[in-house]
Amino acid sequence: MPGYKIISKINNGVFTTHGLLVSLEGIDGCGKTTQVALLQARLEQNQIPFIAVREPGGTAVGEGIRQVLLQSSYSLTAEAELLLYMAARAELSRQVIIPALLKGRLVLCDRFTDSTLAYQGYGAGMDLQWIKQLNRKATAGRLPDLTFLLNLSAEAAAARRGNPPDRMEKKDLRYHRRVQRGYLEIARYEPERVAVLDAAIDAEALGDEIWHRLCKHLEKESQ
Amino acid sequence: MPGYKIISKINNGVFTTHGLLVSLEGIDGCGKTTQVALLQARLEQNQIPFIAVREPGGTAVGEGIRQVLLQSSYSLTAEAELLLYMAARAELSRQVIIPALLKGRLVLCDRFTDSTLAYQGYGAGMDLQWIKQLNRKATAGRLPDLTFLLNLSAEAAAARRGNPPDRMEKKDLRYHRRVQRGYLEIARYEPERVAVLDAAIDAEALGDEIWHRLCKHLEKESQ
Repeated sequence: MPGYKIISKINNGVFTTHGLLVSLEGIDGCGKTTQVALLQARLEQNQIPFIAVREPGGTAVGEGIRQVLLQSSYSLTAEAELLLYMAARAELSRQVIIPALLKGRLVLCDRFTDSTLAYQGYGAGMDLQWIKQLNRKATAGRLPDLTFLLNLSAEAAAARRGNPPDRMEKKDLRYHRRVQRGYLEIARYEPERVAVLDAAIDAEALGDEIWHRLCKHLEKESQ
Repeated sequence: MPGYKIISKINNGVFTTHGLLVSLEGIDGCGKTTQVALLQARLEQNQIPFIAVREPGGTAVGEGIRQVLLQSSYSLTAEAELLLYMAARAELSRQVIIPALLKGRLVLCDRFTDSTLAYQGYGAGMDLQWIKQLNRKATAGRLPDLTFLLNLSAEAAAARRGNPPDRMEKKDLRYHRRVQRGYLEIARYEPERVAVLDAAIDAEALGDEIWHRLCKHLEKESQ
């Protein structure tokens, strides 16, 4: 891989003075969980220290919020749900992500700020500018440096998803189409940050592509 | 009382087509709990239907959030705490307060939007404009119609507070002075809404004053 040499030269996994915040995004069924696992394995093989986070967990408060969301999923208003997710994000960003980035570490997020924009914004119709502002406040302005968008049609994603479907997955195909279009819109606004990858290809090949892109990014950063 | 006749004439406690949202505010130790109880008793004596709410409880989600706040009170970041309170407020506003107001009811809040401004904003130094924006979003713009600010110096309030002190009460006198000044600042910006009452006087006399002011407000509304 072109970036391998670069990575092997990097001292103790400290890439830059400001760390590297990487997120993986995509609609349910796009294969994101598999790709997060593959990427973690690659980072470990290459002895690159990293932390992997997944919202709303990762902090004591986040776990508490996860319980609140699970217990009240059918009565919760959209605005309260949004604010709860943002509270968990604020805690995770300030207690975990930013301290790791300040040590120059790589932080890998299984979903992050773009998920809220895509699902609550484009999908559920909440105010996009309001979500962006909450994202900035919750993360103290520390948004992802690099995002891999696993691009798959809502139909293909639905076909891939197993049983039993969770609450989010029960929502209809039209909703997932809006989310999917939202993700592409986000990528269109920020092509430098968001890499749109074809998630219909073989998982191993997609894993290679993500690794290749990450190495290229690190190469650029270390110049 | 001048307003009594007006109130007794109002049908089934429906004051106006948009209800009446009343909040009681003031620093810890100002005697607010006593006044809320006195006001509730007066409303009951006069057979005026009302609902009384207190954040962050009052909804299933609010109770869950209360638990999260209690469990993690010492590690929670200020931004996460703010967003958690706002999530509870969003739920309470949309599930309880606004539906009651739409039926023309009186809703009595033991603390509400001004507490966040006074404590997190003026007291803890968080961005006032951000808190105002969150307040508007959480309440869907339905802010209090009438607020009773129980005005007492931080020193007098500290002397009144019993043992054991809770987390908020442990914070120092300088903090409570900032909160107290913040409340007065809020009242200065909105003199029509916020009635500043001397909380150093006898509780019964203060209760009479609150009742008198509420009746006057209802009289004005029903004209």
